[in-house]
Parts: sequence; C-alpha cells; structure tokens
Amino acid sequence: MNNKILYGYWRSSASYRVRIALNLKKLDYTHQGIHLVKKEQQNDGYLKLNPQGLIPLYIEETTAGRFILSQSLAIMDYLEQAYPNTLLLPTNLSQSAKIKSLAQIVVCDIHPLDNLRVLQYLENQLRVSTNTKMAWYHHWIIEGFTALEKQLNQVLGENTFSMGEVPGYLEAAIIPQVYNAKRFNCSLEKFPQIIALDNACQHYPAFIKALPENQPDAEKNT
Amino acid sequence: MNNKILYGYWRSSASYRVRIALNLKKLDYTHQGIHLVKKEQQNDGYLKLNPQGLIPLYIEETTAGRFILSQSLAIMDYLEQAYPNTLLLPTNLSQSAKIKSLAQIVVCDIHPLDNLRVLQYLENQLRVSTNTKMAWYHHWIIEGFTALEKQLNQVLGENTFSMGEVPGYLEAAIIPQVYNAKRFNCSLEKFPQIIALDNACQHYPAFIKALPENQPDAEKNT
Repeated sequence: MNNKILYGYWRSSASYRVRIALNLKKLDYTHQGIHLVKKEQQNDGYLKLNPQGLIPLYIEETTAGRFILSQSLAIMDYLEQAYPNTLLLPTNLSQSAKIKSLAQIVVCDIHPLDNLRVLQYLENQLRVSTNTKMAWYHHWIIEGFTALEKQLNQVLGENTFSMGEVPGYLEAAIIPQVYNAKRFNCSLEKFPQIIALDNACQHYPAFIKALPENQPDAEKNT
Repeated sequence: MNNKILYGYWRSSASYRVRIALNLKKLDYTHQGIHLVKKEQQNDGYLKLNPQGLIPLYIEETTAGRFILSQSLAIMDYLEQAYPNTLLLPTNLSQSAKIKSLAQIVVCDIHPLDNLRVLQYLENQLRVSTNTKMAWYHHWIIEGFTALEKQLNQVLGENTFSMGEVPGYLEAAIIPQVYNAKRFNCSLEKFPQIIALDNACQHYPAFIKALPENQPDAEKNT
C-alpha cells in the first residue's frame, strides 16, 4: 500500500507546481480540494494535518504509517529522492544547484509576496485600492521574471528544457507562476524565453493534467 | 585551489543563515560585504555576478573554473551535498524532508515578506506609516513562528537540536530570524521552544562567528 494524497486548491500555484512534479514522475495521487477563499485551510480538521493552515500538503499512507509533509519545495525535493524513476533534476551537482536557485526566484521571491493571504492583508489591513494591489502583484512578478529571464539561457544552454529534451523541476516551478501572471493580466512581452518555455511545456500531459481548470475542485465562471 | 567567497551583508538574515551553514561545515570563506542600504547590490559590478541584485551570493573558485550560486536555500543544499564531512541534515529521508519543511516556514513564508526591498516598497510606494510597517513586520514573524512552534517538538523529539546533539540546517534557518525578530522588538514570549533553541545555539562557535555584529562590514551605533 502506498496511497498519496495532495491537499491543494485548483488555483494555488504552490499546489500546481507539486501536481506537475507528481505527474512528471507518473505517480498516482488523490487531489483533495481545500477551498482557500472559503478559508477551509483554517478548519480544525485541516489544521490537525497542517498546523500552519497553508497548502499544499502531501500525505503518503503506507503499511509503515502516515507521512505528512508541507511546503512545496520540501515536497518536490522529497519526491525527487523517494521516487528516482524519473528524475526532475540533473545528477550533476552544480547544474542541479543552479536549477534550484532559479526555481527559488519564483518560490521564494515572487510567490510569497503575491499569494492570497498577503493580498488579503493588503486589502483588509492596509486598505489599499484594487489598482494598488494589482500594481504590487505585477511588481514582484516583473522583478522576479526579469532576473529569471537573464539567467535562463545560462541554465538551458542549447536545450529547450532544464532536463534537456524534457521538462523537470525548474518548469514545475515556473509554469504555474506564468499562469498566474496571465490570469492577472501582467504583461510578459519582456520575457520571451519564459514564454517559449511555457509554450513548450503546455504540450506535455503532465502539465495539461496539472492545469487549474482540470482539477476536480475547479469552478467555472469565477 | 578552492576559494570560497560569500557576498552578503552583516544584517541580512539570508546571508547570516549561509554563514552558519559554512561555519558548521568548517569551511573557510571570505566575507564580501555588499551594503544593502547604500544599494551596492545594484552596482554594475555586482549585477554581473548576480543579475537579480540580491544577496547572498556564493562563489567557488577552483582550477576547473568559477561556480556562482544565488539563493540561500540552493546554496545550503549545494554545500550539504558538496561537503558531506559534517552533515546538516539527517540521512533519513522523511526526517530530512520534515526539517526542510520547517526551515521553509522561515525562508519562504516569513523572510520574503519582511526583507528590506519589501519594507522599502511599503514605505515608498504604499506610503505606510512606520507603525503600519512594523505591524506588517511582526505579523509575518508571528504567523510563521506560531506554525513553527507547533511543529518543532515533532521534529526535535527528545533532542535539543535537529541533528540530535548538535545544530544543523534547521537552526541555520531559524536563528537569524529570531535575531531579526528581537532587533525589531517582536515579542517572542509565545514561542518558548524557539527561544530555547536559539539560546542553545548561541553557545556554538559556528553561530557566534556568524553573528551580524561579528562580520567585517558590521557598523557600530546603527
């Protein structure tokens, strides 16, 4: 027995990146929707699983017991080591470190500033206007993507993807952020390499299956 | 030849955590101060090394060439694999993943919201008052530390430190954040386990040597 459950939300980009990683590794899992806007992450039942009240949360149930893990990067690193059948990072240490560094531009420098709890703080505590909130949102994407765009060719070289012929860890981090940027009408014309990488990934079943609109908890017309 | 250089700033907690990791691993390195308040991270010379214009930046010069790496977690993960003489994470995969998850509460959920560039945005773009800025600063520390405090005993068990008798990766992530919290008068009385861990670490040369005030670029009376 090895049951995998991913607690997430269709529109959460942190959940989205873990979905891509699971799909790239061809691991079966159950998607358990936690409705962030309805604040289900603050329900007692969920807080018992993840006291931080954030998603994603990954659970693995085996005969040996239940293993619970939060934080998207920790989950991705765990999957990489626990399921090396399909690798998402190169075995070369320096190249792998470079890829992690670029992924962290998204995970540590863009997403934490633009996630729902921060936008809610801006709105409810700081009482900023919708325009100011959107300017904030775009600002951190543009800052991060500018840095990423400058370094992407260093890591990709002549390849289309970070793993050569196929996408991996880096694409799992970047593509959900591109999705969010588009959703909030952030102009991406200054980032041709990021756009090319996004376009190339969208042909892969692992990425299609992970799309927010393809999740069981996706809502129409919202 | 293997020269290591860490570009950082004495008060940057991301630099501080890498200093601790280098010291715990007993690796010699040169500290190269980049004055964040004077915006030296935006100088052309530095941007050539790190196009993102952030610190820390780790450089390793060997006969094979120069290896440049940004992002504190990527640097710590690289050091862990490249220099396994002293390990900062347990070899048990699940336990190591749990520790990384807790470290990421600090690195991904607290620090990105409270670092200098964000505080400057609040001040210059959003024109918030000093009180509002400090409330923001404290809010994200308290949110993160509350989650951390609840899960710390799960990871530490009966041990004082994450590596049993000695501190490691987890402490390298947490202690700089405690330092910052104290510096900005954030009340920590609700976090007795975090405080106990901080007190225990302060006896270790690796942590003492990494303290902001013990760096060559430290300034007095600021």
